[in-house]
Amino acid sequence: MSPSIRGQNMANHGAIGRADRGKLIPGLVPARAYHGPGRAFILALAILLTPGTCWPGTGAPDDRLGHSVAETGKRAAPAIMPETGCDPLPSWNDGPAKWAIMDFVARLTDEDSPDFVPAEERVATFDNDGTLWVEQPMYVQGMFVSDRVRALAPEHPEWWERQPYKAVLENDKAAMASLSKEQVADMVLAVHAGTGQEEFIGTVQEWLAQARHPHYHVPYTTLAYQPMLELMDFLRACGFRVFIVSGGGVDFIRAFSVETYGVPRENVVGSSLEYEYGADGRLTRLAKLGKYDDAGGKPESIALHIGRRPIFVAGKHDWNRMFPGTESPGRPHD
Amino acid sequence: MSPSIRGQNMANHGAIGRADRGKLIPGLVPARAYHGPGRAFILALAILLTPGTCWPGTGAPDDRLGHSVAETGKRAAPAIMPETGCDPLPSWNDGPAKWAIMDFVARLTDEDSPDFVPAEERVATFDNDGTLWVEQPMYVQGMFVSDRVRALAPEHPEWWERQPYKAVLENDKAAMASLSKEQVADMVLAVHAGTGQEEFIGTVQEWLAQARHPHYHVPYTTLAYQPMLELMDFLRACGFRVFIVSGGGVDFIRAFSVETYGVPRENVVGSSLEYEYGADGRLTRLAKLGKYDDAGGKPESIALHIGRRPIFVAGKHDWNRMFPGTESPGRPHD
Repeated sequence: MSPSIRGQNMANHGAIGRADRGKLIPGLVPARAYHGPGRAFILALAILLTPGTCWPGTGAPDDRLGHSVAETGKRAAPAIMPETGCDPLPSWNDGPAKWAIMDFVARLTDEDSPDFVPAEERVATFDNDGTLWVEQPMYVQGMFVSDRVRALAPEHPEWWERQPYKAVLENDKAAMASLSKEQVADMVLAVHAGTGQEEFIGTVQEWLAQARHPHYHVPYTTLAYQPMLELMDFLRACGFRVFIVSGGGVDFIRAFSVETYGVPRENVVGSSLEYEYGADGRLTRLAKLGKYDDAGGKPESIALHIGRRPIFVAGKHDWNRMFPGTESPGRPHD
Repeated sequence: MSPSIRGQNMANHGAIGRADRGKLIPGLVPARAYHGPGRAFILALAILLTPGTCWPGTGAPDDRLGHSVAETGKRAAPAIMPETGCDPLPSWNDGPAKWAIMDFVARLTDEDSPDFVPAEERVATFDNDGTLWVEQPMYVQGMFVSDRVRALAPEHPEWWERQPYKAVLENDKAAMASLSKEQVADMVLAVHAGTGQEEFIGTVQEWLAQARHPHYHVPYTTLAYQPMLELMDFLRACGFRVFIVSGGGVDFIRAFSVETYGVPRENVVGSSLEYEYGADGRLTRLAKLGKYDDAGGKPESIALHIGRRPIFVAGKHDWNRMFPGTESPGRPHD
């Protein structure tokens, strides 16, 4: 997927940034962690994004357009793309967050800098919901679950008499609010399991093609945040491998990660069901939780899946658990 | 790591190919699997390597050198690198296995071919032991375990009186042969656990730098097979992402995958311990098996980690479990 195509996501729906401003505040934490055995220190730079720092639509358009890197450099940020004169983060306000990111990347890619990081170690992780795309008024995967319950209901007439399905099918908000965690978990498993991996990914893709955000009335994949798409492209251009590390379902995210974010399936880390591979060569997603990458599971999943500590983390929470000792706590969401 | 540096591995130790010939026989299975929901078929080409097909040192040197791709093409294989005239697999005998691989790659990278595969789907997986490097007379990780028991013995005086450690410390082969699986597993866990991920990887790297193969008296990392290094480079040059999928320990392999094979840490899938992330930001490898990627676990781990079925598989077993319906079973090792 070319950046230009992905770049349309927000350009076509510029209202999203304004609507979400002040609600969705990621804390960007570029962190330089040294990994050598016996030498454990972390040199980290934490950036607290405040409302209005990076969303498109904040400030007058003139404040965000037309600043060449050279101009930005006069205000503190280095001209890190002098060969093109291009601004790699045009949707970002010309403020401390952007300067800090560009300075950080400039230092670690400069072989003469004491902060130089070999390409092999340039790993960046992004949370998904609320960081890369919209999570209001509900996690997108939650919307998928509700819609799947409705879509599968004809095959399950008993659902009309059984909670938690009954509440969803009748759109009974009071009943939904009283569901137990276990009931919700059972329902999530039920609509996610029983098919193969490609089949499930195909189901999600079909759903994404037709589902619409309840307020904006556009496909969810168009509600990816343009500033974050630019940041991912910028980091990749500077030799980073970019990963998504989410509490969302790994195969759910894989259904759109390539096309929406340019992130290949193997660079998605998330919660998962257990898989079973049959003698017939078919892989089945079981109704059994494999791992749950909530705040408590991400660092371990990063270790297993990526095998090294990221040096750049973008997300709206967890950062202080993942990088204790960094300077500033970002701003928790919720 | 540049290919030229890695290319020295076998050039310096040409005897390895001869010594192992007939013992280590990988079955290479380039397989084109269609993933669409509801349309499950596999178009696969299985290549059975027989002794003498690909190892350096088989046949007279003149049989393996000086064959340009154009010459190879006359015998059946396509000239897939006409722009350079280079032979991407110079260590391979000019025979059916090489022709089949080159033909397969030519077809799937040709946009006008019915077998064309988009770059995103070009995933290749390689087994490690016996496929990418030596596994005789014992798995290299087994050698590591024995050496670690000896290295850690001063901290564990009780080991001299306790099995299975006693057998290893006294090099008592009869006692070792009578150890139970559980005893061996406990010992493996004991010497792998208790440290952080970077610390463990550093320990393995230090060991690899000084350990020597008992017969060849060279570092294990020099015992990677040149034909397979060429094959990995060739596939990468043709847009594949190359993964190692092994029953060996994932962090053990990560200790040398970058330098020896050019495979980044995140592209290694293998058996793992569970990790625990503490409030102090330290990750600890627990003495508790996370997953064991033996023959029975690899397909599931590929699904979780990579998220799509590979279209090219190199290994010496498992292929018929991973690709039922392919034409030929490869040749099981052991």
